[in-house]
Amino acid sequence: MKKVKVAVNGYGVIGKRVADAVQLQEDMELVGVCDIISDWRIRIALQKEFPIYAFDSKFQQEMAGNNIEVKGILSELIKMSDIIVDCTPKNIAAQNIELYKKAGLKFIVQGGEKHETTGHSFSAENNYETALGLNATRVVSCNTTSIVRTLTALKKAGLLQKARGTLLRRAADPWESHLNGIMNTLVPEKDIPSHQGPDAQTVDPELDVITMAVKVPETLSHLHYWNVQLTRKATTEEVLEAFGKSSRTAFINYADGLSANNTVKELMLALNRPYGDMYEVALWHDMLKVVNDELFYAYLVDNQAIVIPETIDAIRALTGIEKSAENSIRKTNESLGMKRGWFI
Amino acid sequence: MKKVKVAVNGYGVIGKRVADAVQLQEDMELVGVCDIISDWRIRIALQKEFPIYAFDSKFQQEMAGNNIEVKGILSELIKMSDIIVDCTPKNIAAQNIELYKKAGLKFIVQGGEKHETTGHSFSAENNYETALGLNATRVVSCNTTSIVRTLTALKKAGLLQKARGTLLRRAADPWESHLNGIMNTLVPEKDIPSHQGPDAQTVDPELDVITMAVKVPETLSHLHYWNVQLTRKATTEEVLEAFGKSSRTAFINYADGLSANNTVKELMLALNRPYGDMYEVALWHDMLKVVNDELFYAYLVDNQAIVIPETIDAIRALTGIEKSAENSIRKTNESLGMKRGWFI
Amino acid sequence: MKKVKVAVNGYGVIGKRVADAVQLQEDMELVGVCDIISDWRIRIALQKEFPIYAFDSKFQQEMAGNNIEVKGILSELIKMSDIIVDCTPKNIAAQNIELYKKAGLKFIVQGGEKHETTGHSFSAENNYETALGLNATRVVSCNTTSIVRTLTALKKAGLLQKARGTLLRRAADPWESHLNGIMNTLVPEKDIPSHQGPDAQTVDPELDVITMAVKVPETLSHLHYWNVQLTRKATTEEVLEAFGKSSRTAFINYADGLSANNTVKELMLALNRPYGDMYEVALWHDMLKVVNDELFYAYLVDNQAIVIPETIDAIRALTGIEKSAENSIRKTNESLGMKRGWFI
Amino acid sequence: MKKVKVAVNGYGVIGKRVADAVQLQEDMELVGVCDIISDWRIRIALQKEFPIYAFDSKFQQEMAGNNIEVKGILSELIKMSDIIVDCTPKNIAAQNIELYKKAGLKFIVQGGEKHETTGHSFSAENNYETALGLNATRVVSCNTTSIVRTLTALKKAGLLQKARGTLLRRAADPWESHLNGIMNTLVPEKDIPSHQGPDAQTVDPELDVITMAVKVPETLSHLHYWNVQLTRKATTEEVLEAFGKSSRTAFINYADGLSANNTVKELMLALNRPYGDMYEVALWHDMLKVVNDELFYAYLVDNQAIVIPETIDAIRALTGIEKSAENSIRKTNESLGMKRGWFI
Repeated sequence: MKKVKVAVNGYGVIGKRVADAVQLQEDMELVGVCDIISDWRIRIALQKEFPIYAFDSKFQQEMAGNNIEVKGILSELIKMSDIIVDCTPKNIAAQNIELYKKAGLKFIVQGGEKHETTGHSFSAENNYETALGLNATRVVSCNTTSIVRTLTALKKAGLLQKARGTLLRRAADPWESHLNGIMNTLVPEKDIPSHQGPDAQTVDPELDVITMAVKVPETLSHLHYWNVQLTRKATTEEVLEAFGKSSRTAFINYADGLSANNTVKELMLALNRPYGDMYEVALWHDMLKVVNDELFYAYLVDNQAIVIPETIDAIRALTGIEKSAENSIRKTNESLGMKRGWFI
Repeated sequence: MKKVKVAVNGYGVIGKRVADAVQLQEDMELVGVCDIISDWRIRIALQKEFPIYAFDSKFQQEMAGNNIEVKGILSELIKMSDIIVDCTPKNIAAQNIELYKKAGLKFIVQGGEKHETTGHSFSAENNYETALGLNATRVVSCNTTSIVRTLTALKKAGLLQKARGTLLRRAADPWESHLNGIMNTLVPEKDIPSHQGPDAQTVDPELDVITMAVKVPETLSHLHYWNVQLTRKATTEEVLEAFGKSSRTAFINYADGLSANNTVKELMLALNRPYGDMYEVALWHDMLKVVNDELFYAYLVDNQAIVIPETIDAIRALTGIEKSAENSIRKTNESLGMKRGWFI
Repeated sequence: MKKVKVAVNGYGVIGKRVADAVQLQEDMELVGVCDIISDWRIRIALQKEFPIYAFDSKFQQEMAGNNIEVKGILSELIKMSDIIVDCTPKNIAAQNIELYKKAGLKFIVQGGEKHETTGHSFSAENNYETALGLNATRVVSCNTTSIVRTLTALKKAGLLQKARGTLLRRAADPWESHLNGIMNTLVPEKDIPSHQGPDAQTVDPELDVITMAVKVPETLSHLHYWNVQLTRKATTEEVLEAFGKSSRTAFINYADGLSANNTVKELMLALNRPYGDMYEVALWHDMLKVVNDELFYAYLVDNQAIVIPETIDAIRALTGIEKSAENSIRKTNESLGMKRGWFI
Repeated sequence: MKKVKVAVNGYGVIGKRVADAVQLQEDMELVGVCDIISDWRIRIALQKEFPIYAFDSKFQQEMAGNNIEVKGILSELIKMSDIIVDCTPKNIAAQNIELYKKAGLKFIVQGGEKHETTGHSFSAENNYETALGLNATRVVSCNTTSIVRTLTALKKAGLLQKARGTLLRRAADPWESHLNGIMNTLVPEKDIPSHQGPDAQTVDPELDVITMAVKVPETLSHLHYWNVQLTRKATTEEVLEAFGKSSRTAFINYADGLSANNTVKELMLALNRPYGDMYEVALWHDMLKVVNDELFYAYLVDNQAIVIPETIDAIRALTGIEKSAENSIRKTNESLGMKRGWFI
């Protein structure tokens, strides 16, 4: 089988995970990772024997001067690739997109970019098919991905009327919590509704969803609380069954010692996940409650990991190497060792 | 004017504030504070020249041995008092209540106790009158107090249909955050709905309120996010006007630099509040949003301070020295330097 | 008595405290505070009825547009003042100094500036007399102030040979911990020795002191650990007596419940200190240990407050209104309610 | 080759890591892990197909009731084993020791126990040979292990006269930081000197070492700052060479982006270490400084992982399957993928 040649631009929190995940796919080949850094982070890529590219010749020289063996520069990498996953910071990505378009290269951007940059926003369980053969898509952000996944499950079961969520956002990623944290405080996002609701609607305009968001002083994961108006009275079992059908939402039990996000992180590490990554939404089975026609529940979102399987599926959708969402999701989930039903 | 003789049992986080507040009332006299501790905390009471009582003769001896001048023991304090405010920890309070009842002493317990211990739960703006002349009441907890205050304001304006809240609870008080904190994690309360909704209904059974709660790693204050179903479409101005009528809910503006709970704490310190205490609910004026007939807003609750004015009012209500809620609230608010409308 | 006319430029963490402290001195008059901000922080100064000045006419207009009543601009304030205390951020201060010099105005800069900006670095107990009549001085930083205070006490007792310290620095001030904190990590300062040792020598070149420093994720205070080589074997009592002679170092006992910096902060609040400020070094009496001719001890430094009394003394020294260090220190300490010996 | 049959009693933070490490040794066989828990943690052991034992028949029943397949109880496991590694909490371990002794089983206890429980304290690079053939030893604690490793390196180079350290201790392990953390504070250990110095002397009485210790609000690792009096003036290069000879101390460079303990944790995760474990002491190469005959440096200690290789070596020493410290250390280090010289 001919493998899709995938390039990754930006070897940061998301980029390094995408590169590792591409490596695990039988139908993909990692042709290179591109960055501008010269410190230990890029030397990890060297140890993994990934082909390394610099953004341009200036950085190529700088990296070479730091004993980073560089294969070439971005424009060369672009020529070798079937598709590129852009994981660079916000303003950089906008510029890169022009390069990709000029080269006629398919590309994927991350959720920090605007919907308009690609005209299509992606979440595999919801709209894989609509991305088939497109030139570009945007994998929506970690929070939005979790919202679309869970609400899609309720929608498919005919239970979703409207959803109102409060999102507790980890204030910084672990690797950079020495640079930009918050301490002994809570920082609300000024705008209510926060942007995640409208963002979810870029994937599925039918979702009636409004969110409020607040930064909290921890690094591990986001925590979402939801109040959903159901279309009708329902039982707890019906709702749990609906969520259980999601291929990327798995259950945890509070009573099983998994009563906080540090314990769930420890579980992921114990499961030998790389970086302790959690690709699934982790939803508390025994906290979920239905009161008449209202549903209440909470779940955890690993902001570093949840978009990785989505990105892999997006590669398949854009390149068309797999026409079926179900098949792509299955391949991705198996390759990453993801769980269905219960984490343990 | 004859002053009401008030005793305070338990000189901890709440007790020391109640004692200070009683001192500020023209119609009250602090006849003593009672505790069992011998460290710096009780020596602060000595410096303030509060009469100090020990729980019993065993502790009296222990405190005397630590150079704490003790006037007597609880049973003696009880005889001298018109009313006692119990601020002791949970299990202790239950035992004390028997002593108070036997002595025929009016008493107030804090929100950690059950409604059944007194049969009446108190929140001044909502039900002051129903406490007039009673032998005992329970001042509801910090979170519940804020809920009753804000929802009462909406109810009085005819706007409240049902309210759904997510409560971020500070994990420990500042003075004991070296003993029982949480670090780099979020700890949901297992039970949904959490207890605060039913607790608010002990004050006002008409409130349709459901809450979910989570402990967060900070010490400064609780933060509540609310989604309220209004009785009708309303404007933002109407809602703000309703909240503005509350005598114990004041506004802050996010755009004024008050964008997190540490900044609001700094404001309280700058206002020369003792301990930086905030007796009011601090509601973000410029974050509040109405979407059709749904209302969204957030506010801060100082868990150490919000029940202090309520407790002062409860003293007046039980002893009957002030028949009017409005008058009592006014006296209390003025004595504590509380703000109406805007904090600054 | 003619009062010294004092201006404060920069109404931030230090400036607002200096302004309050100047107000408390019988021999000083606060002629104005100058800043560029238009939010709640400057409105606090308005409430205190401080004359407010804007840095220049551009900011004057901006502040006026935000309903901040402004008396004039910095150049006008300069003309009215006998001395100005510059509490502006680093790069700003350097520019201001040129203005002060040109106007022939005496000035004080804070510890963030270099020794060379004034040629004199100040710590009252060590070198008050050398500042008499000078045109300018620099009040050394919070950490350096604590080092000079404590080592001066040992030096005066003839006990100090050399001192080696490890400094745990709070990562951000409480009021801005929503902007620039660190989370779940420790951030060493790259350079060993860290700058505080040489900085202490700008006050007293005889001090043999080397330090290492690390940022820790809390906002309350710095914590210093010291290992001192004494000139001879000494008893614990001798060392405690030496520290006890310092007028600005006071003792706390770990066994008295003061076992962490949050408890000490609570003590300061209980003592009704504004902002819970601690002007003194708080040294643990019952942790201090002498092993042969080596001394080990730890103390806390309130980075927001410790330089305030030093700044007040520096005003007296530069203007010459008090020739005696002892007298100035006594006046300052009394006005601020500072403690000698034990905090409680 | 006949493999040593190893049992692990207590499947917690240390026990689960010891079990994994034993599995990686060619000369060892894991015959069982024993615990009393029934939650997700023990089900991880089930997934790994470790033989699981309950402490006694009561717990066996309880675990069976929770669908944990249990092979038997501790007394049965003891009979099958050549040696047992006790990783149970403090008071439990003391009782277990009686069982092991009665059964004539060799055993290893962890650093939480007293030296007297075994009469021998172990640190591989320092005293492997003295443990050969003993019935029992104690692997010293994480902090003590790091002290012995680093000071042994200086001692072997003839450079060590005396060492004075300040130890910043992570306040709780990640997996339980929802239960027993500290928040926005620093908690000194009351006793100076702290226990780690004398503890290091149980391994090597010649070490002249005094420490002070403080708990800090993070979960990732301990951070040690040291001031060492050298036997003579030395160059930075000599000292680095001495540390470089340690087989279990590796270098990091601050200038390489590894400027805080969160970044070092990220590096370990990037290196695919299980749980992001760091078995080595991570010493900052470019922070280390020699001033005349004094040495200053800082390093990180992963409190969850550093004793794991030591425990593996202790198994070899007690059972005598490897007489040479060097060989055992090499085998262990290779099996765990440990680094010499530089981490990256």
